[in-house]
Parts: sequence; C-alpha cells; structure tokens
Amino acid sequence: MLSDFTLKPEIILYVLDLTGTFVFAISGMITAAQKKFDLFGATVIAFVTAIGGGTLRDVLIGSQPVGWMNDLTYIYLIISAVAITLLFKSYIMRLRKTLFLFDTIGIAVFTILGLQKTLGYGLSPVIALLMGTISAVFGGVIRDTLTNEIPLIFREEIYATACLFGGLMYLMSQMLIPSGPLSILIAVLSIIGVRIAAVKFHWSLPKIQ
Amino acid sequence: MLSDFTLKPEIILYVLDLTGTFVFAISGMITAAQKKFDLFGATVIAFVTAIGGGTLRDVLIGSQPVGWMNDLTYIYLIISAVAITLLFKSYIMRLRKTLFLFDTIGIAVFTILGLQKTLGYGLSPVIALLMGTISAVFGGVIRDTLTNEIPLIFREEIYATACLFGGLMYLMSQMLIPSGPLSILIAVLSIIGVRIAAVKFHWSLPKIQ
Amino acid sequence: MLSDFTLKPEIILYVLDLTGTFVFAISGMITAAQKKFDLFGATVIAFVTAIGGGTLRDVLIGSQPVGWMNDLTYIYLIISAVAITLLFKSYIMRLRKTLFLFDTIGIAVFTILGLQKTLGYGLSPVIALLMGTISAVFGGVIRDTLTNEIPLIFREEIYATACLFGGLMYLMSQMLIPSGPLSILIAVLSIIGVRIAAVKFHWSLPKIQ
Repeated sequence: MLSDFTLKPEIILYVLDLTGTFVFAISGMITAAQKKFDLFGATVIAFVTAIGGGTLRDVLIGSQPVGWMNDLTYIYLIISAVAITLLFKSYIMRLRKTLFLFDTIGIAVFTILGLQKTLGYGLSPVIALLMGTISAVFGGVIRDTLTNEIPLIFREEIYATACLFGGLMYLMSQMLIPSGPLSILIAVLSIIGVRIAAVKFHWSLPKIQ
Repeated sequence: MLSDFTLKPEIILYVLDLTGTFVFAISGMITAAQKKFDLFGATVIAFVTAIGGGTLRDVLIGSQPVGWMNDLTYIYLIISAVAITLLFKSYIMRLRKTLFLFDTIGIAVFTILGLQKTLGYGLSPVIALLMGTISAVFGGVIRDTLTNEIPLIFREEIYATACLFGGLMYLMSQMLIPSGPLSILIAVLSIIGVRIAAVKFHWSLPKIQ
Repeated sequence: MLSDFTLKPEIILYVLDLTGTFVFAISGMITAAQKKFDLFGATVIAFVTAIGGGTLRDVLIGSQPVGWMNDLTYIYLIISAVAITLLFKSYIMRLRKTLFLFDTIGIAVFTILGLQKTLGYGLSPVIALLMGTISAVFGGVIRDTLTNEIPLIFREEIYATACLFGGLMYLMSQMLIPSGPLSILIAVLSIIGVRIAAVKFHWSLPKIQ
C-alpha cells in the first residue's frame, strides 16, 4: 500500500516525461517542415528537440550511456510522433493551443527530472537548477542551431526563466517540507503558471544593449 | 593460422577506417577553402569532418577518452591530409570521382565500426544502429554547423538512409549467420550499393512540408 | 616553507584562471549585446564563452561531472561579470585595451591548465596540446556558433596558433628542465608574446583557397 503511494509520483512523472518528449518531437517536425527538410532531416530534428536537452545534461554530469539509451520507449515514441505528424499534419496544426499546454507541461517535467537526476549525482543544488533548465530548454537551442537560426529563447522568452523559477520553488519547498510529491506539484504548477502568465501578459526579460 | 584468419577482418576494417578518415579530412579541407578559412580554421574543419561523428558517438555511449585519443595515427593522418590538400589542391579537385568512392567506403566502414562498438558496450541493436549512422554522418553535420550552413544531409540525401539500411543488413545477417566477416561484407556492400544507386538514379527522401 | 613554495604556482594559476573566466564572460556579454539578446540569452552566452572550452575538453577526456560543477566560484564569478557588465557597460567599453590584455592572459592560462589536466589523465602530450588549445579557444567557437556566426578564429587569427605554440614551449621546457613554475612562466609569456606581436604586426595565417 505504502509502496503503491510512494511509487505513484514516479509513474506520473514518467508518463508526463513521455508526453513532453512526444510533444517536443512534434514541435521539431513543425520546424523541419518550415525549413523544407527531407524525412531524415526532419526525424533528426524531432529527436534533437525531444531529447537534446536531457542528452546534454547527461553528458555534462557524466551519466553515460545517456538516459534514452536505456529505455527504447523514448525512441519509439519519437518515431511515432514523426509518423503521426506526417499523417495528420493539418489536424495537428489546428491543435496549436493544446500543443502549447503540453509543451509547457513538458518543460516543467523536464526541469524537475533533470534537477532530481543532478542532485542524485551528488552535485550542488545550484548545479541542479542549471541542469534542470538545460534539460528543458537546450533541445530547442540545439534544434535552432542545427537549422541555422539564432536560438529563439536567447531573444524573447520567459521560457527558461520559468524553469529556473520552478526549479527554485522545488528546492525551497524541499527544504521546508521534505515531501517529494508536494514539491514536484508546486514546481510544475509554478513553471506552468509563469509560462502561461508570460504569454498572456507579454512578459519579457530586458534586452541587453 | 586460425588467429591469422580471425584477425584479418579487423585489420581490413582498421585500414578502411583510416582511409575514410583521410578522405573525410580532405572533404573538410575543400569545404574550408570554399569558405576562405585560414590554415587553422581549415585544419579544425578537417578534424571535425573526419572524427566528429565518432567523437559524438563515444561521448554519448560514454567511451572516454574518445577513440582517437588512444591512437595518434588518426591525428597524424588528418594533418597529412591537410598538408596534401594544400600541396596538390588542383590535382585533388580532379579526383572528385575517386574521392566519392572512398567517401562512400568511409561512411560504410564508420557505420559498421560505430555499430560494433556500441554493441560492445552492451547497448541494444536499435541504439547501435543509430550510433553507427551518427558515426558516419555527424562529422559532416558538425562541419556544416560550424561553417554556418544548414547540414546538407537534412535536405537532400540518401546518405544517412544508406547507413541505416546497411546497419540493418549487418544486424539481420548476424542473426541468420553468425559470421563477423560475412556480415561486414554484406553491410559495406549494401551501403555502397544504395549510395551509388541513389546518386545514379537521383533517389531522394520525400520532403516534409 | 617548502609546501608554501610548491603551492604558490597553483594558487597563482587558480587566480589567473578565475580572471580569464571573468574576462571571457564579459566578452560574451559584449557579443550578446551586439545581437540584442535578452538577459537570459546574454547570460547563456557569457557562460558558454567563459566555460565552454574547458567543458568540451572535460567531456572529450571523460572528466565528469565537468570541472566547474565542483567549484561554484566559477558560476558566481560569471553571474557577477553579467551584473557588472550591465551596470557599468559604457565604462567597460572604454576598457577594451585592458580587457584585451586580460583576455590574452586568460587564453594562456586556459591552455596550460587544459594541457596539465589532460596529461594528468595519462593522455599523450600531442593530445594534451590539442586539449589545451581547445580549452582556450572553443568557448569562443561555441559562442559564435550559437549566435549564428562563422567562428572568428577560423578566418583571421593567430589566437589559436599562439596557444599551440605556448603549449609546445611548455612541453619542451618540461623535458629540458623539469620545473613546473618555470615551464608555466615560459608558456604563458610565449602565448602573450605571440598574441601581442600578432596584433601589433598584423600577423595572420595563410588563407586556404
């Protein structure tokens, strides 16, 4: 019974992680379509967008072979996302609002999982905060670099800031009440809240000039 | 006598691996010349083109220090390729057809060696297939990214697909007849065959739009 | 007394390493300002410029978690550099000559520390020479790639060549007189000398065409 309860958040996080991966892969496909890539190029961009951030984190902290190599679910899921985008492209384009929601859930979950994994390697909370954010946003950075664009989040974005804020909320709530599930909930809701508010109220960071 | 025979394919693969490295370095030099790089920039591009794919594979599977650090032959070979390209540039430009053949042998050998190394790390055949292909094609992707171009193989290429197909042939023939040399031969010939046919008959993957 | 003396060069190198990191972060901020990045983008570029080269070296030789994860001084220093650049921008722009000097000290120290670390991993002096140079110059290469520019040092630069030369001087002086501090001094002065002479006398490497 107890084990059932303690296992639950892990399963929820795993499912949300897969959801985020799937949605990130679709967003990669949409970028590739705008660049008129062929099927191979588009699939590479789908992969890079979906697992690039976590891969960079794993390489930096020394968790190798990198995470997705030990669970083929991620690879099959990305290939499914590629196929589904090709088959139902016009339908998926109309789902942009839903995709935005899942994308936001995705970065929230990627942040928390990246942060937890880094802490699990005995690294400092400051490093964990950075690695959580890198897990969430560097897939997009690598995608933009490979498609010869300046990464979008370097110019107008509260995206990464939401991850940093949510990660900080996780660490702080962990210090106050040492309950895994509650901290995760607070962090995920913080990230989703900041992200949605940022889009709704056109929040942006000051430009450097 | 027996050990002589079993050693042979390894030596052939090693020589072909060196050949591929050499030809990839020359192709890097040609790209650098088009971009009017200086000697240092050109040498970096030669290195990246020749060993970038294998380096990325090694970092992802956790084989560090990366492969070429343990065998200086690769470094001396790339430096030789840089020098030879500089000395005999006009002659090398006329060799394009021969270079294409060696380049194709190169990607074939890089694919098989990358695949075998990944399997040797206890990773799944699916991952090995991806890592074999990455070994063969990501040197070119990093070269294109550093020279501020959209990677060529994302747009019009049967290049990577040939590697995936050849890698698959290797895995399948390994299951049917567990003979290393024969599987390697089948895989290398598959990759070379698909690549040459793709160029001859203008095969290409569908564009994503 | 003796331990005092043997410790000294390490402390000097550490302080110079921090100085280089700080100046590299400022140079990243200046690039980000030219690209009109926001605060997050600018901070990423500051980080990448300051610690990108050492991070790549650590990943290639397999020193993970990468160096700066074990000493938060680097992170706080880069964040300070970001803040100071924002607060005193016009003043810092007038310091360009001083910055050039510290930048040159920075690449010298990064080269020697990268070289020493690589030797400490039991790798060959040739690899150590390459890794020292990568430590010094690849932060700038990653910065330029992320900001969608062809890396400056690929086109007109005696920058990396100075590092290679200084690293070679270090290795050679180590063979002749096995005194750490003296070799370091010779190497650092070589790099600074070549770099300043290159700028003063407009030295450049031949272009490849």
